[in-house]
Amino acid sequence: MEMQPLKQLKVRCLGIGTHWHPVVFLHIDSGIARSEGLATQSRIELVAGERVLTATLDMVTDHFIADDEIGLSDAAVAALQVSEGDLITVRHAPAIDSLHQVRSKLYGHQLGRQAMQDIVTDIVAGHYSDIMLAAFVTACAGSRLDVREITYLTDAMVKSGQRLHWPQAVIVDKHCLGGLPGNRTTPIVVAIAAAAGLTMPKSSSRAITSPAGSADTLETMMPVQLDVNAMRQVVERCGACMVWGGAVALSPADDLLIRVERALDLDSEGQMIASVLSKKIAAGSTHVLIDLPVGPTAKVRSEAQARHLAEILVQVGSELGLTVRTHLSDGSQPVGRGIGPALEARDVLAVLRRQPEAPQDLRERALTLAGLLLEMGGVAEPGQGQGRATQILDSGEALARFMLIAAAQGGFHEPGIAPYQHAVLADRDGVVTFINNRFLSRLAKLSGAPADSAAGIDFHIRLGERVSRGDRLYSIHATSPGALAYALDFLAQHPHEVRVEGEFV
Amino acid sequence: MEMQPLKQLKVRCLGIGTHWHPVVFLHIDSGIARSEGLATQSRIELVAGERVLTATLDMVTDHFIADDEIGLSDAAVAALQVSEGDLITVRHAPAIDSLHQVRSKLYGHQLGRQAMQDIVTDIVAGHYSDIMLAAFVTACAGSRLDVREITYLTDAMVKSGQRLHWPQAVIVDKHCLGGLPGNRTTPIVVAIAAAAGLTMPKSSSRAITSPAGSADTLETMMPVQLDVNAMRQVVERCGACMVWGGAVALSPADDLLIRVERALDLDSEGQMIASVLSKKIAAGSTHVLIDLPVGPTAKVRSEAQARHLAEILVQVGSELGLTVRTHLSDGSQPVGRGIGPALEARDVLAVLRRQPEAPQDLRERALTLAGLLLEMGGVAEPGQGQGRATQILDSGEALARFMLIAAAQGGFHEPGIAPYQHAVLADRDGVVTFINNRFLSRLAKLSGAPADSAAGIDFHIRLGERVSRGDRLYSIHATSPGALAYALDFLAQHPHEVRVEGEFV
Repeated sequence: MEMQPLKQLKVRCLGIGTHWHPVVFLHIDSGIARSEGLATQSRIELVAGERVLTATLDMVTDHFIADDEIGLSDAAVAALQVSEGDLITVRHAPAIDSLHQVRSKLYGHQLGRQAMQDIVTDIVAGHYSDIMLAAFVTACAGSRLDVREITYLTDAMVKSGQRLHWPQAVIVDKHCLGGLPGNRTTPIVVAIAAAAGLTMPKSSSRAITSPAGSADTLETMMPVQLDVNAMRQVVERCGACMVWGGAVALSPADDLLIRVERALDLDSEGQMIASVLSKKIAAGSTHVLIDLPVGPTAKVRSEAQARHLAEILVQVGSELGLTVRTHLSDGSQPVGRGIGPALEARDVLAVLRRQPEAPQDLRERALTLAGLLLEMGGVAEPGQGQGRATQILDSGEALARFMLIAAAQGGFHEPGIAPYQHAVLADRDGVVTFINNRFLSRLAKLSGAPADSAAGIDFHIRLGERVSRGDRLYSIHATSPGALAYALDFLAQHPHEVRVEGEFV
Repeated sequence: MEMQPLKQLKVRCLGIGTHWHPVVFLHIDSGIARSEGLATQSRIELVAGERVLTATLDMVTDHFIADDEIGLSDAAVAALQVSEGDLITVRHAPAIDSLHQVRSKLYGHQLGRQAMQDIVTDIVAGHYSDIMLAAFVTACAGSRLDVREITYLTDAMVKSGQRLHWPQAVIVDKHCLGGLPGNRTTPIVVAIAAAAGLTMPKSSSRAITSPAGSADTLETMMPVQLDVNAMRQVVERCGACMVWGGAVALSPADDLLIRVERALDLDSEGQMIASVLSKKIAAGSTHVLIDLPVGPTAKVRSEAQARHLAEILVQVGSELGLTVRTHLSDGSQPVGRGIGPALEARDVLAVLRRQPEAPQDLRERALTLAGLLLEMGGVAEPGQGQGRATQILDSGEALARFMLIAAAQGGFHEPGIAPYQHAVLADRDGVVTFINNRFLSRLAKLSGAPADSAAGIDFHIRLGERVSRGDRLYSIHATSPGALAYALDFLAQHPHEVRVEGEFV
């Protein structure tokens, strides 16, 4: 075996997109792999000029990567800003000091302020592999973080990214913890709050596993991908904005941790609280209203749990200078009629436009939250908020403010309507006794949501409603015959997820 | 977007070797990825005929994978036994029920027998992703498993693989917990035990991160890659064998867990104990001697820790019908002179052949352990074991038995000698005050060990020894000029890791 000191390797851009996580590929027999004792899953450090990146190594046995080459995933190419054929250096990644802190937590010790900061800094720098992230998430699972640790974690997460500052003394925000399908109160609450004189620079997320996120819904009506400067200008002009949070890089550690929590289906009270509050503090909020829907299939299952969470939210917020108010709401069934970006936007617009067919449940929820926010922000007396919010909505001020914001963000447009629709009919007279929300989410995604923004499900009935044979239960909306066929195929395999049962008279 | 129900995908064998862990690649815009809501890191199930495999998904943005294709890593190709162009079906992996048990452990509950069994079964079936494995390892870290849980885990690990049975009532084995470099007592102890009439079907591991494992060392003298039938025949004929354990598939869960523990540098007392004992029970052992080297840089750092471990080892062994005896030994420095497969084999042979230059520390350790094992196995009275072991070694019976076993395994051969050697000399008169064992391991690996079996380091001095300027301290052995150059290059960068200091007279 001839083994020459290999100092540099030639970059191959493989076009492999392993999400945020950079992966690189070496040939298993390459000199550098053997001499450095590199193996699959080794953590290695890549150096390209002044850029340094930690990546996970995979070995290839096929010869599509030569001995003097290194294959890079998209994330690695982007982070190092290299091109095909560039030379980079490779070395073992140094030991990660903050892992000691994770182990220490595992062995039962509390994490201090500096320890939490070191861990979060290493996570955001990309030094933690999936296995290490999972160990940290696991170490903090359940109720293993006390209020002090949650405070440190929140603070470290805020510091891990950008932090916005606003000239106004009071900056309000709202958050719904454990969303319900169709529960798009955000655009309505923001419009009312801004019309009432509050400052509300709202940023929302896109769907990750659901058929629509608030940002997806908003994007069917206006541009949402604004950078911080553009966002500032909108807020200056309108008192509020409704943008996608991804372009703003607030609390980037959060996204990394959530991905792992989701893979483990693990509830971590401490991380959930740090996640919510860190985004709000980083966004420059001073007063945050948190909606906690409680229901058997909601994230928060009992009132006791909701009260416990509420207490910690308020306490941690207070430690970090944030006024938090919580609101417990009914989380037993979806809100509104549409599932999917454009269909949910239609419901929002119907409420803002005071159309008779507007879903009342969405209107009521939005008014309750807006009312509480007006009281928190000091523009309504205690007990007067909801009345004032209703006035602003019913007078058309909320709609006007919504349109002002949309114009400032680049212009309002009506949400699209899907060209292919298929109505699912009741096969008998009776009562709607069962609606499987997970099935509906899946069906909406199969029809193309959220990528096809007009796709989704439109609900015509509610649980417990009486229907006659032939009545429309819900419609599937799609933007291509292929997508519609795909959804119908799935529906044919699962015919009993929305059930109508005959009544015994 | 045209989206047709894609039922089957064409296999592309990518030659990507992600170790045991199967990974598959889909194009990010493929119909199936979009419609099934598959994302990078999704767990998906592949079906090829009657074979079903769970794999982790990566998305590619480049077009080297077409829309109707799926790229498979080596592990996936091997598990499904498919070839380029074969058609396979893809679906979301079902939820893993045993993850509930992992979460339950995280939330503070004890794991019962069935829960442990379910978890281990799912792990061995490949249902756990790295993130999930890390969560389980973390949930069990430190001293979080009590004796009952360790017993259940050990038992589940035994049941996860093959279990050997032997006609003899007493089957002995030995294990060294936290090995020291050069500590190759195994071949000597096995030869003595078998010569004394005991049955010892020994299986050993190859190096993972060290310059040599016992199996690597043995392989420089005899074939070690025997299947279970061949192993049986050797044991029938010779009373013992010395094979590589990897071909026998004992306690396969262990390898999966160890990989994750190593990545986290996490000590899990319970898993370490389950790992050791499950391999021994699965191998059919009834009496096991466990050597616990204690030293500041050894795995076990204090005598108190060693005694605590010893107690649990004995207790769990007893629950599962295994007689365990522990022996605390000095773990402060390496054993023998060679580091690397052939050089360690040379030390072993020197002891067996009673050569005057044989390393005395290796001889003494082997005799102590062999003596204890003879007593445990009932072929020596308490207190008489070491004397009997010494007699067997010094009479040449141990050597004869070793050669008998080697012949039965396929024939003895002398370990190779590296053609390229470089002696590192003392640059002054003085005393050897410092030897960095981690540096030496690294240097041995850079010279080619363990893949080049003759490569490694040969030590000519010991800590505290007086040397004169120009005396040989150690030699680097390599099988090619390139490998030697590579090691020397590293040495030039780290010149002070073996230190001679002048004496003040």
